[in-house]
This record gives sequence, structure tokens and C-alpha cells, in this order.
Amino acid sequence: MTIDQIVSQIKIKKSFLCVGLDVDLDKIPEHLLKSEDPIFDFSKSIIDSTAPFAIAYKPNIAFFESYGLKGWKSLGKVIEYLNLNYPEVFTIADAKRGDIGNTSLKYAKTFFEIYNFDAITVSPYMGEDSIKPFLDYKEKQTILLALTSNDGANDFQYLINNHIPLFKLVISKSKKWTKNNNLMYVVGATKAESLKEIRILVPDAFLLIPGLGAQGGNLEKVSEQGMNDNCGLIVNSSRSIIYADSSIDFAEASAKEAEIIQRAMSKKLKEKGVI
Amino acid sequence: MTIDQIVSQIKIKKSFLCVGLDVDLDKIPEHLLKSEDPIFDFSKSIIDSTAPFAIAYKPNIAFFESYGLKGWKSLGKVIEYLNLNYPEVFTIADAKRGDIGNTSLKYAKTFFEIYNFDAITVSPYMGEDSIKPFLDYKEKQTILLALTSNDGANDFQYLINNHIPLFKLVISKSKKWTKNNNLMYVVGATKAESLKEIRILVPDAFLLIPGLGAQGGNLEKVSEQGMNDNCGLIVNSSRSIIYADSSIDFAEASAKEAEIIQRAMSKKLKEKGVI
Repeated sequence: MTIDQIVSQIKIKKSFLCVGLDVDLDKIPEHLLKSEDPIFDFSKSIIDSTAPFAIAYKPNIAFFESYGLKGWKSLGKVIEYLNLNYPEVFTIADAKRGDIGNTSLKYAKTFFEIYNFDAITVSPYMGEDSIKPFLDYKEKQTILLALTSNDGANDFQYLINNHIPLFKLVISKSKKWTKNNNLMYVVGATKAESLKEIRILVPDAFLLIPGLGAQGGNLEKVSEQGMNDNCGLIVNSSRSIIYADSSIDFAEASAKEAEIIQRAMSKKLKEKGVI
Repeated sequence: MTIDQIVSQIKIKKSFLCVGLDVDLDKIPEHLLKSEDPIFDFSKSIIDSTAPFAIAYKPNIAFFESYGLKGWKSLGKVIEYLNLNYPEVFTIADAKRGDIGNTSLKYAKTFFEIYNFDAITVSPYMGEDSIKPFLDYKEKQTILLALTSNDGANDFQYLINNHIPLFKLVISKSKKWTKNNNLMYVVGATKAESLKEIRILVPDAFLLIPGLGAQGGNLEKVSEQGMNDNCGLIVNSSRSIIYADSSIDFAEASAKEAEIIQRAMSKKLKEKGVI
């Protein structure tokens, strides 16, 4: 999926919301547990109910993986369902992969070919040749960790080299790794104060912003500091949307949560002149 | 598996060799492709033939993952086969995982519980809370990327903060994250020149050293610079052992390659007074 296609969706839906599918069998409504594939059934209901308000879905691979073969089977069904029924939405494998070149090539094949995702999150620690195999898929988006939403971000991401913190070096180095306009960055919603400086480095890049809701990120601040003429933001919420309610009406509750966020997003998009 | 158990194996087998299972259907002997599960059959033959010379096996998860469900099924059989038939060998999931706490918890569950591995490789970029869930498994080993074997290591791992390169800061910070003697580090065999300095920071820690063989690492140098009284090294070779030959006699060829390395290792262990 190209950036133009993503921007087009943002304008049509007046939204830059990504719904994170962190599907946990201990948290989904109990009545679903009797079905043959509760992981898929839950995901499908969430997707169907929130699709009017979301432009992207982000299955968190760890959650699927933790159910072994059954989880991978469910993941295959979820991505197939998205591809078939909502081909316009942007699908992100939240996998944080990255390894030496010949191994990253295998990860890229897995998520871009076998599971036809539009994008994958990757980790920068191993440098250029660990990310290149993903970037070589020109029609796919590679989303590199820059400044993450968790406390541990303070351990290494702010370390200063020649007056520049690591997360900025990751951005300024990596932006030279592709000419295909297919590199995005992860910046935690809890790190809104750094968005202005990041925008100086990559005024045009799309940023995937996790951490809204359960992790405490703030949509107003994020939009104020990070939005560009194309929106340039995809803001993710997982738990606060998908676990909005645990009754039989869970999907409507999720839709309501998603709609509340979409309305706030629509307002920001208008304020900033994107729509 | 505890460090004592690993050291005991090193002394019994006079070896600190890890065989990396980077199983690629394009590279395994052709006659195996007719079998129902060539990935497992190939892995099983390699394990059986090299087990007298190796103390550890390291399935490269990317390779298994890239075959989808079939690959995960094969991975399950490989780890089960190792656990049942070679309970004394140290099993490493080479997965380079790492995410926010609640997500890393899922990855830890996957590899430590569902697939009963003894260890997993993880990436430090997201800091302490992304690694803690792995370390909380006291009987399992967590192996943190420090200085990797690939060219991309030069992009960020050597960046200097307060006169100290990032890979050393990763080591000196992370060593405080556990008191369970269950944290190891990845240091590429191509980076032998840094092993002496790493040993000053973590004289007792075990180091997983990939990059011998196809990637150009040198066993002599690595042992000279990195070995401690307990050996403290697990040196991995993948391609040069498992693809030593593509005929029907591939397993014997792999055994021969493994034995050549084991003999060189035995010599170094004696020289250094470990055995």
C-alpha cells in the first residue's frame, strides 16, 4: 500500500485511527470462548464494528504467537478477512523483527508474502542491513522503532552522541536507507514533547503512534505536535477500544469508543487543514 | 537450564559448539523434499549426527516462520525432539524479540512455555521493561544483543555516550536487571577485538557468539579474547555445518564439520585450563 492510498483513506474516513488487535483469551467476552476460533471471531467482530472509524489494523503478533499453531491459524484468518473485506485499510504486523540480512529476508517473506500485511514494525539495533530486506518490498511499508512509549525507552533511546540522542540518530541515518517513500517510524503517544523535533528531521514521514488510552498518550498533544499537511500520523489504540466492554454487546461498545476517537481526529484534521 | 548445567556439558563434550538450525528448503538435500516434513527430517538428521560434538542447538525462528503454519509445526517437532532425546543440550530460540512489557510477556510465554526452549535471543532497544518478562523466568536464559556480527552493527552499536559505546552501555545497564544469573549476551564472532573489553564488564557472563564460518568469524581469536574459567562462550555455526554437503550423506558431512570445530574447541579448553 502506498502513502497516497493511506492519505486517501484518512481523508475519506476523517480518521487516522489504527485499532490494535492485542487479542487475549483472558480478556475477551466469555461467551466467545465456546466458539471454535474465539481469537478470529473476536477480531472479526471488532473489525466489522470499528471499520467505519479506523483506517488501519495492527495485529500484535506476540499475542497470536502465544497461542501456538492455533494462534498463527487465527492470524492467517484475520489478515485474510481484512484483505478480502476491507482492502482499503492499512494492515500492520506489529512484530518488532530485525536480524542479519539473510534472516530479515525470511521475516519479510513471512509477513509481506505469506501473510500479505501492508507493513511491519522493525527494530533498529542491528542497523541498515537488518532493515534493508524489508525496505526492498517497495509496495510495503517498513515501520522502524524510534522513540517508544514504554518506561524502558529511557534506558538507551535518549543516550547522547555528539549532542544528538539515539532515537534521532536512528531517524536521520535510516531515512537515507530507502528512496521508495516506504519508511515510517514508531513514536510513542507518551512522547508527544519530542514530536516537534522529529518533524524537523522527517517532515513528510508517516509516524505510527502507539500508546493512546491504556498507556496514557494524549491525542490532542500528539496531533498538535506531529501532524503535517498529509496528516502524517497513524495513532493506535488497542486495549481501550477492543476491551471497552466484556458483555455480549462488546462490539458496539468498541465501535462507540472508536467513534469518539474518530470524531476528535476529524476535528484535528479540519483544524490543521488536512480535510 | 542453569549455567552449571551448561558448564557441565561443556566439560563432558569438550565443546562449546552451538549448531544453528537455519533450515532453508532451497538448500537442504533434494532427496529430503519428498518427505512429509522435510524441515523436521533435515533438522533431526543434523541433530543426531552432530550431537556428540555440540552442547547447544539454535533454531533460527525466522526460517521456520517463513514456512507459515507448516514451519511452526516443524519447529514444535524439532524442540520436542531435542527435549525428549537430548535433554542435556541447551536449546536457544533465535528470535530477537522485544516489546513493551505486556507484549514481551507473551513472547516469553511462547518460547519458554509453549515451545519449552531453554533460552531466547532478545533485542535491547526498548530497554528494561521489554526484557524483564523474559528474565522473570529464573530457570531460563535470556540472551541480549550487544555487539552483532553484521555490517549494520556499525550504524548504532558503536555510538559513543560519555566516552562509552552503546553496546557497552547495553551490557553495563542490563547486568543490573537480574540477580538470577540468567542473562547472556550476543557478541558476533567477527567482533573478537571487543571481547577483552566486554570481559571487563561481565567477567562471568556467558556470551553467545554467532558468525563463525559463513560470516567469517575466527574461533582462535574468539577463544583467546573471550574465554573465562567456566569457558563462558557458546560459539554458533550454522551454514558451514548444516550445509556442509547436499548429497545423501549430508548428515555425516555435517558431523565431520562439527567434529573439526569440536576438536579445535577441546584444544582451547585445555590450553585455558577449563578442562
